[in-house]
Amino acid sequence: MRLFNSTTIRLFHRTFTQNIVPPNAITKLHKMSTVGKPINCKAAVSYKPNAPLVLDTITVDPPKSHEVRIKIINTAICHTDAYTLSGKDAEGLFPCVLGHEGAGIVESVGEGVTSVKVGDHVIPLYTAECGVCKFCKSGKTNLCGSVRATQGKGVMPDGTSRFHDSKGQSLYHFMGCSTFSEYTVVADVSVVAIDQTAPLESVCLLGCGVTTGYGAAIKTANVQKGDTVAVFGAGTVGLSVVQGAHSRGASRIIIVDINDNKETVSREFGATDFINPTKLSEGQTIVDKLVEMTDGGLDFTFDCTGNVDVMRSALEACHKGWGQSVIIGVADAGKEISTRPFQLVTGRVWKGSAFGGIKGRSEMGGLIKDYQEKKLKVDEFITARRPFSEINEGFEDLHNGTCLRTVLKF
Amino acid sequence: MRLFNSTTIRLFHRTFTQNIVPPNAITKLHKMSTVGKPINCKAAVSYKPNAPLVLDTITVDPPKSHEVRIKIINTAICHTDAYTLSGKDAEGLFPCVLGHEGAGIVESVGEGVTSVKVGDHVIPLYTAECGVCKFCKSGKTNLCGSVRATQGKGVMPDGTSRFHDSKGQSLYHFMGCSTFSEYTVVADVSVVAIDQTAPLESVCLLGCGVTTGYGAAIKTANVQKGDTVAVFGAGTVGLSVVQGAHSRGASRIIIVDINDNKETVSREFGATDFINPTKLSEGQTIVDKLVEMTDGGLDFTFDCTGNVDVMRSALEACHKGWGQSVIIGVADAGKEISTRPFQLVTGRVWKGSAFGGIKGRSEMGGLIKDYQEKKLKVDEFITARRPFSEINEGFEDLHNGTCLRTVLKF
Repeated sequence: MRLFNSTTIRLFHRTFTQNIVPPNAITKLHKMSTVGKPINCKAAVSYKPNAPLVLDTITVDPPKSHEVRIKIINTAICHTDAYTLSGKDAEGLFPCVLGHEGAGIVESVGEGVTSVKVGDHVIPLYTAECGVCKFCKSGKTNLCGSVRATQGKGVMPDGTSRFHDSKGQSLYHFMGCSTFSEYTVVADVSVVAIDQTAPLESVCLLGCGVTTGYGAAIKTANVQKGDTVAVFGAGTVGLSVVQGAHSRGASRIIIVDINDNKETVSREFGATDFINPTKLSEGQTIVDKLVEMTDGGLDFTFDCTGNVDVMRSALEACHKGWGQSVIIGVADAGKEISTRPFQLVTGRVWKGSAFGGIKGRSEMGGLIKDYQEKKLKVDEFITARRPFSEINEGFEDLHNGTCLRTVLKF
Repeated sequence: MRLFNSTTIRLFHRTFTQNIVPPNAITKLHKMSTVGKPINCKAAVSYKPNAPLVLDTITVDPPKSHEVRIKIINTAICHTDAYTLSGKDAEGLFPCVLGHEGAGIVESVGEGVTSVKVGDHVIPLYTAECGVCKFCKSGKTNLCGSVRATQGKGVMPDGTSRFHDSKGQSLYHFMGCSTFSEYTVVADVSVVAIDQTAPLESVCLLGCGVTTGYGAAIKTANVQKGDTVAVFGAGTVGLSVVQGAHSRGASRIIIVDINDNKETVSREFGATDFINPTKLSEGQTIVDKLVEMTDGGLDFTFDCTGNVDVMRSALEACHKGWGQSVIIGVADAGKEISTRPFQLVTGRVWKGSAFGGIKGRSEMGGLIKDYQEKKLKVDEFITARRPFSEINEGFEDLHNGTCLRTVLKF
């Protein structure tokens, strides 16, 4: 059962802080407030791998110290949710509340939270940013060590869950976000407040896919004007790499995808070429083709497929001497990448990118601004909108050949 | 048969240019000159894999256009020579004249050669530098494309060999150098003139091992003050990495080698720690050990072994978020490196280095100067000196536990 909708919360917050209602009204509102209390709300629970999500009313405990409870307004479905749901993710824990690409409004905060306040519009961050750990202070990475251990175990930093299903069973958190619940609790280092005028139904995509691809191009790879780029996989991440490379003035941006339906959208995002690797000349490999097209190979390649064979091709299609290949896709558990060391000794560089190398709390504001100023495409990725109750249909959308993102609304 | 030794050539050159002998004497000298003629000289020929080198008198043809004939004064033996000789190098061609770490004096030059002249002291370069190809002009790599194709085929840029054995059989060149011959012919882009006061019996080591390791640390990896470094393999290359890292002020330099006899020399070159990976605690891997020693892993690791399993350990011992692993060693043909892509997605970078990323013609002078100013150790690598006739014993030296470099003298 939902006790307050976001409008009520915002009204309450404004009322309370502006002090324009008599004390007894505040008391009444406070009694009705969800602050400090468990909230019963709708959620999609994943009880076991490879099974439909179960729509249920779950209980979301109040945030503890340095935690934030968020009313999720919109959430999209990412392939990583589908990956964990498939059971291929060795670290997947069930039962759990999936979802990590969402946006919402702060309902309440635990003790010691100073970075966001009730009523803030926010994006949960699966890549935290504490600002004080060895990683954050290094200046070399966006990976933060503060909540890594517990996040990987599906619990909050104190080692416990805030979620219980209608039978009282504890549910695991997912990627520190769990946006497939109307209310969720995240660590205060795992959430960023954003411009209140940004539409949550769009910018929720910055919680993962768009930021991951765009950042991989402009930050991890740091593509420069005139560079040649190949992107394997024309999903949301791949097309975001394309728009990042395009924004930097890459001279050639080749999309490689086995689905010809992706050609038009690839070109709309800035791709100059589209190659279907299943339709090459007899005996020609995708590496041969790309090397031939680019006089020796590419300055940058990006794997956005999670397929380790594709990762190898992406590396080997790089130009000798300086080509860099960036792995973004998540591989199936146990899968390994391989190549001849000669590929690296002759100057190719193999690296990876998580969340596009973007520091969520420091840099999300810039991405939101780029979106608002129409420098960063986001709405263009939304191929379907559904009520949250259609979340299983949303997962099915992923399998149709033109889906980029289905955005759900609570 | 040797027609002229280096002293004669230098005398001739000086005499000729100083013009202090009567014209008829010059004519006589010119008649005796080897310029433009084949030279018969001693060489060590490798007729087949895994067999001793055959000391023979071979014929070295005069240099063609843009070629340089060098009288080799000193040559060292590198593991890459032994590797090709072993037959494990799939690209090894026989019969050939091995050797690529040498120094000598220019005997004659072909048409169009302007970068070196007769009498110059030189180091042959297995990594050419033409200055005008796509690679040289990129500013991103020391790999030059100018003579790559023919060098890999064991011939000069015109597709032919300058070497013939005493039975007239053509012999392959090796790595564009072939320093196991008293005279050799190289492309003019594959040789650099050096300060005449630098002792050839020492600086020959800059033709490969010392430059490869030192450059990998200061150029490819660009180690900075305070960085932590692990080096796998305490041979000449590995110890050169150590001295490069030490010169940059690395805070910790860990050498990993299975031979305890290498500990003392490792520390002399600047290593702070020596780990024998065969003597770890029960169940502990070298990755565990290094991660434990460095609070999460190293800023830089270097493989100087050519063993693909070691290459994987070197990568995985890097610090999450920013650690970089540099492959220097040459792996056996067909061997591949592998890891979980997660290692890269979480911020580790896998790269390689050839000839230390050093551009031989542009940058060798600086290394020679560093050596002369005692900033770069070179003599310390020479563990034996032998006459050229003992080249097979020199190869055997490689197997004794304390050998770094055996320098041969013609």
